[in-house]
Amino acid sequence: MTTTAPRTERLRQRMRTAGLDVILAFKPESSFYLTGFNPIIYSHPVIAILPAQGKPSMLIHALRDDHARASTFIQDIRLYGAWSTKVTMGPNWQDALKTMLEEAGLAKAVIGVEEDFLPVARARQLAELLPGASFRDASEMIMTTRLVKDADEIANARDAARIADTGMIAAVEAVRQGGSERDVSLAAMAAMNRFWADNFPDKEVCDFGSLEGGAQNGLWAWALAGDRMFMNCDNPTNRKPEAGEAISILIWTIVNGIHAENERTVAVGALNDERRRALDSIIEIRNEVATLLKPGTPINALFGATKAGLEARGYGKYLPGRIGHGIGLGAHEHPSLDARTGILLEPGMILTLEPNLRIPGIAATQLSDTVLITEGGCEFLTRAPDVVLNA
Amino acid sequence: MTTTAPRTERLRQRMRTAGLDVILAFKPESSFYLTGFNPIIYSHPVIAILPAQGKPSMLIHALRDDHARASTFIQDIRLYGAWSTKVTMGPNWQDALKTMLEEAGLAKAVIGVEEDFLPVARARQLAELLPGASFRDASEMIMTTRLVKDADEIANARDAARIADTGMIAAVEAVRQGGSERDVSLAAMAAMNRFWADNFPDKEVCDFGSLEGGAQNGLWAWALAGDRMFMNCDNPTNRKPEAGEAISILIWTIVNGIHAENERTVAVGALNDERRRALDSIIEIRNEVATLLKPGTPINALFGATKAGLEARGYGKYLPGRIGHGIGLGAHEHPSLDARTGILLEPGMILTLEPNLRIPGIAATQLSDTVLITEGGCEFLTRAPDVVLNA
Repeated sequence: MTTTAPRTERLRQRMRTAGLDVILAFKPESSFYLTGFNPIIYSHPVIAILPAQGKPSMLIHALRDDHARASTFIQDIRLYGAWSTKVTMGPNWQDALKTMLEEAGLAKAVIGVEEDFLPVARARQLAELLPGASFRDASEMIMTTRLVKDADEIANARDAARIADTGMIAAVEAVRQGGSERDVSLAAMAAMNRFWADNFPDKEVCDFGSLEGGAQNGLWAWALAGDRMFMNCDNPTNRKPEAGEAISILIWTIVNGIHAENERTVAVGALNDERRRALDSIIEIRNEVATLLKPGTPINALFGATKAGLEARGYGKYLPGRIGHGIGLGAHEHPSLDARTGILLEPGMILTLEPNLRIPGIAATQLSDTVLITEGGCEFLTRAPDVVLNA
Repeated sequence: MTTTAPRTERLRQRMRTAGLDVILAFKPESSFYLTGFNPIIYSHPVIAILPAQGKPSMLIHALRDDHARASTFIQDIRLYGAWSTKVTMGPNWQDALKTMLEEAGLAKAVIGVEEDFLPVARARQLAELLPGASFRDASEMIMTTRLVKDADEIANARDAARIADTGMIAAVEAVRQGGSERDVSLAAMAAMNRFWADNFPDKEVCDFGSLEGGAQNGLWAWALAGDRMFMNCDNPTNRKPEAGEAISILIWTIVNGIHAENERTVAVGALNDERRRALDSIIEIRNEVATLLKPGTPINALFGATKAGLEARGYGKYLPGRIGHGIGLGAHEHPSLDARTGILLEPGMILTLEPNLRIPGIAATQLSDTVLITEGGCEFLTRAPDVVLNA
């Protein structure tokens, strides 16, 4: 279990520069980031309280007490609500939070909240609860801190990628056996879960739930056959790919809160020339762009190289909006790999690289890898073969 | 595919009473409720636009176009962003939404938004975009409308419950075979997925993702053995229940956006008297409370009957905070079955009934069913046997 996290110190440095006294994190990914605790469902909020100086604390519903104590690296855990014999600070989080901030001398502080997540109603409750405080947006500060991963997060990403590789092998085999989208999806999910259960006794594969729902298992695979590739994302159906069609296989995994993604296009029988050329071209372009994956490259240069590669091959009409995204606690996290993002790559960043083609009615490709930026360049964490033809 | 939804008319009636001209729904569950479209991941927002009068519309990212057209019952679909050859209203949702509202004469309207979900940053963008509009909270109106289910939603809940029953049978069998928490979880998830794939060709089991993540498959089972029952929710481990211990099995399913929940306590070998008495008592109390599940009963009377039942058996020190919750598009949705909620039961409501005991260090029970309120009383949608002893 982590007891001190470099990410916490990096965030505190940014807090001090920006003049924030404390951050109150309500977003599931962020409260996990600052506490190591994921209750899986967030209908009762988990609040991470990180002061710029002094000890961090957390506030949770009483029913989460035993689970939180087994998971978090925070020492100071406070409870709200009612649950059997648990002693709590009061029936709701509002009164408990006010007491905690008053105790810490932070009731009139400059408080950072995540305006990209915090619902309007909760923001109003906070303002009424703490009339002497002032509130500022800490969303960007937290997302920027999350961009560069800590060593434990990178280790989890490697494990998530190993699970994804296992899933891809099972998925391709299911295509080879003539399976439907659902067969492919189920075979890959079963293989990934078995691999996880057998090899990672102490790691969790739950995802982050929402305000209304949970996410007990985040080892997901789905597949889209033929024209259904244009859907980009959909629940798998009983459709089987026919000879001459491609099927896209999309695998998303998570280990201890950190995601990996691997997506491939599998040809069933011989593709016609247009489909084959699209797929070959995308792999070439991906390989060209990958040479730019190293510290110092601006993200929009990755998009620019993709655009140039597509234009050079006569695909200039079919530009995507982006060619990947950050990945970590979010399956899709900041930033977008697009034409506008000037952020420079740094060691420890993890991105998906997924330049793809959609030629309506003609051809679609699906290719995505999870890539770690290193001191010397990059390391592909997902390692499935680029392309499988004639499965 | 639904073409008109009674829920939409019920909501419109409430809108007119409250003086709302239009609702802009950004919450995943709500935009699905009003459009029938779930993109599975919400990093690009889906906006459902429901005017009090006139035709509804929706605004989505261009990359979701093909998927949305195959799923939604809304005719007027507009696009933002950039994606291959798709023609969009502009690079971002803000400008596109402004144009749509201006076209509909709603740019200076009274606009309902969900303040229980809408992030502060988005609310500010809306206010800046539409300086002539006024904004009111529509959260409660939408959650109240969601409480009573439409016929298609009830059919989906029945299917979700059938899948849960299948999972419970597989889970109990895995316990009988000496499996660990993970073995139980994996066996149940595999059985549920196979049952879904074979029996529900046209139904989806994806869940609602979040702003950063997706949820491709929401057929979940987990198990907590022995003392781990006090965790209430956790990712399954390799722990096996020992003789004399109980193991809780928790199954959550979803079909076309509607959830079901079934939870059971399975004894391995003979339980000691305290554990056995706790489990027997909870089943008795659940049966007493179930007689009150009928139209006209206030929800706090359900909590009251549970409290009385616990006190009568000497368990008054171990009261839970609530004994269930609404279920539907949310796995945990409004309302809580607690001491404060005076809502009267109505036909078409679906609830979980889960009075449970936590006697720290001594005994824990886990029992939950998904129950439909009918004209004449109630119908248990989940049908696993109440208790399995000596597995």
